[in-house]
Amino acid sequence: MSAYTIVNNDFIPADKASVLITDLAVQRGYGIFDFFKTINGRPIFLDDHLDRFYHSANQMRLTVKQNREELKTLLFELMNRNKLPDSGVRITLTGGYSPDGYELVSPNMIITQQPLKINTEINRQGIKLITYPHQRQMPQVKTIDYLMAIWLQPLIKERGADDMLYHDTGLLRECPRSNFFLVTHGNEILTSNTQVLPGVIRKKLLSLNGQNFTVQETPITLDDLKNCKEAFITSSTKNILPVTEIDGQVVGDGQAGEITVQLYYMLQELIAADS
Amino acid sequence: MSAYTIVNNDFIPADKASVLITDLAVQRGYGIFDFFKTINGRPIFLDDHLDRFYHSANQMRLTVKQNREELKTLLFELMNRNKLPDSGVRITLTGGYSPDGYELVSPNMIITQQPLKINTEINRQGIKLITYPHQRQMPQVKTIDYLMAIWLQPLIKERGADDMLYHDTGLLRECPRSNFFLVTHGNEILTSNTQVLPGVIRKKLLSLNGQNFTVQETPITLDDLKNCKEAFITSSTKNILPVTEIDGQVVGDGQAGEITVQLYYMLQELIAADS
Repeated sequence: MSAYTIVNNDFIPADKASVLITDLAVQRGYGIFDFFKTINGRPIFLDDHLDRFYHSANQMRLTVKQNREELKTLLFELMNRNKLPDSGVRITLTGGYSPDGYELVSPNMIITQQPLKINTEINRQGIKLITYPHQRQMPQVKTIDYLMAIWLQPLIKERGADDMLYHDTGLLRECPRSNFFLVTHGNEILTSNTQVLPGVIRKKLLSLNGQNFTVQETPITLDDLKNCKEAFITSSTKNILPVTEIDGQVVGDGQAGEITVQLYYMLQELIAADS
Repeated sequence: MSAYTIVNNDFIPADKASVLITDLAVQRGYGIFDFFKTINGRPIFLDDHLDRFYHSANQMRLTVKQNREELKTLLFELMNRNKLPDSGVRITLTGGYSPDGYELVSPNMIITQQPLKINTEINRQGIKLITYPHQRQMPQVKTIDYLMAIWLQPLIKERGADDMLYHDTGLLRECPRSNFFLVTHGNEILTSNTQVLPGVIRKKLLSLNGQNFTVQETPITLDDLKNCKEAFITSSTKNILPVTEIDGQVVGDGQAGEITVQLYYMLQELIAADS
């Protein structure tokens, strides 16, 4: 049986869920979203994601009709109907059906759930990044703007890489769908302090600061890449994914670094505690 | 009777036209469009708009299924059915229904037509602009990305203005839906030479260079605003619209300038010749 998608308050078979073409997402690319995982039917870090969802909505002047409890009720009803224990749930809020195609009106909310394979072992081989000069607009909001990310996909393939790392005149930012961290030879774990999405996994890692690790938000640069010992990216889908090559240069010994591996399994414990 | 909208090759009553929520416009804000006017049932500068539409599609790696003649046939069939002599026609091309919500697939094309009041007299009172630091991404492509434009609407109202003029570290660019021109005390008509949308009306004005006027693409700055004699914006909807105040400072004598008025009526002649 096909899964359901929620469009506003209606449960619609996922393959039929639609919006009118007057929606400001279609007309003007205007919308926000958030995304969380479920493991064994339990949402992971749900309150962190809802915090960010309401924050994004507020920043973008979009009104969420449901308060947090009402939204949770909707989410759990969707999960109960869909019976997808391991899944990704996406809540999208668009600019709505604007009569003049420009002014913000009552938003449309869309909630989808899809099966997701949950990783519980680190990918030791890691991935290859290329750097690219780009600063996301409204970086602290999880908007639907992935124009540059999707446009650059052929370049990534052409360069034999897996993803790209944005920088703004040399200051490292983030990947299109994940935050970026590096580990220095002094074993400091660093991530950009500004102009990036406040990722939920990023936040969990920052909360480990002082517990055997130094994890800090600070300006980091393209030059810092040349001297780093380890690197990895974080996201709710990927958890922690080692980066073993950047712009053709091997990071560390070309395998997941020791600290990256430790962090991965510490994060797994945090996830297990929430699931 | 309600107008029709084309979704791919189907004619749908305009208030029912929809796309599935898996479309990359909804998921990732990925799409392009173009917009032209019809006067007395005749499209204005249609080939210029189709040139730009195909160029935008190509730049964004979106395949238009129809060649130019097939697309024209579709457009004229829509106009014949809708019987809206004075109208605005918008052709939107989205990233399509992407199975993984990220990779570009077969685009969806949406063509809408709406009644439009055609102006044939210049608005002598003009409009007020505020300047704002922002560089549009992919400026030479008519993407659906209006995130910043819509987000800034309340600021415009708060400042008692009508629209905003983007600049990139002092270099003037454009307004969200129009190009910007200024007239110097030496009667030179200038518009930004780079990082702006190649507007069709902008192109028509540039073609007047040498015919009694000097119209040029050149770097122009915030400082140039302080010394300009006249200013105006151009778009297919607005034609030429005088700017009489910028950041609270009156431009010229606070009315449409002499050269702006002359250009307006020269443009009217070009439009009449095409309609």
